[in-house]
Amino acid sequence: MRVLGVDPGLTRCGVGVVDSLPGRRARLVAVGVIESSPTLSVDLRLRTIADGLDGWLDAHVPDVLAVERVFAQHNVSTVMGTAQAAGLAMVAAARRGVPVAMHTPSEVKAAVTGNGRADKAQVQRMVGQILGLAEAPRPADAADALALAVCHLWRPAGALQGGDRHELTPAQRAWAAAEDAARRGGGRR
Amino acid sequence: MRVLGVDPGLTRCGVGVVDSLPGRRARLVAVGVIESSPTLSVDLRLRTIADGLDGWLDAHVPDVLAVERVFAQHNVSTVMGTAQAAGLAMVAAARRGVPVAMHTPSEVKAAVTGNGRADKAQVQRMVGQILGLAEAPRPADAADALALAVCHLWRPAGALQGGDRHELTPAQRAWAAAEDAARRGGGRR
Repeated sequence: MRVLGVDPGLTRCGVGVVDSLPGRRARLVAVGVIESSPTLSVDLRLRTIADGLDGWLDAHVPDVLAVERVFAQHNVSTVMGTAQAAGLAMVAAARRGVPVAMHTPSEVKAAVTGNGRADKAQVQRMVGQILGLAEAPRPADAADALALAVCHLWRPAGALQGGDRHELTPAQRAWAAAEDAARRGGGRR
Repeated sequence: MRVLGVDPGLTRCGVGVVDSLPGRRARLVAVGVIESSPTLSVDLRLRTIADGLDGWLDAHVPDVLAVERVFAQHNVSTVMGTAQAAGLAMVAAARRGVPVAMHTPSEVKAAVTGNGRADKAQVQRMVGQILGLAEAPRPADAADALALAVCHLWRPAGALQGGDRHELTPAQRAWAAAEDAARRGGGRR
């Protein structure tokens, strides 16, 4: 299974492609950042992001696109651009028949590190280890996109399906707690 | 000059096409609503809106697309879908080389009624009068899209360019006040 992870953003949109391998392993296929210049008008910036996302989808033909779930409560100064970039990613995928999965930042952290409150450096380090990279991927947006892809591959199915929580592993419990927190926090369904 | 006004929304996206005529008059070309079912997943809903906007742009070939400027402070439960629909409209226009203008709700009200705090019914009534319609356009999203288009045609150039405000007409002063309020309120630049 091939996942394209998208860490949405208007100035920098992280993109990372990961293949699952037998034995709960994963392989880095490609990683990068789609940038748009703040000197351009918003419509041209969004078009740059949309065109870039089209290019990544066409080049790597993923089985699923995993994008960060954006909440209105987050950083007000950037949330509009972030939400719009996420929307463009979803439309680009839908137009190619690629299913879309959304994961919250806490879910990503829980899936990758076992701790829904892990800091950025921990996430980057674990993503590097999981993918067998000599060093952690940079910049942070690229690492976050890979983390989203890994999260989607490694998400604990039991927690996602709302299974018996007392049978969960520590990583699954952290995931379930993150999902609960996201639910309580509201956000669009 | 032909303007496509877009009142962005995920459930209902209002669209209205208006032509300017000599003597500060305007003509209704087409008006409608692009809808997406809340029972679909968000990616498919956004795709429905994006495809609909493409269709309106291709059918009516506007000279400019006028879309409501969305602020993060607005209704939290719908702002993400609204922002995403606005982003899709901007990309659809940019891909066709159609310039995009953004106007705040206060600017629209000021341009159409001369009062930046006019209520919905007043705006609908004035839009109907301006376009010479037998009755006010419905639903509200469609009327708002027409109001955006009329706003763009009738925006007071002096106020937009930051000209001498003491020389402004009442409508221009209302517009300038609305612009100032939007600036103070923040929002993405």
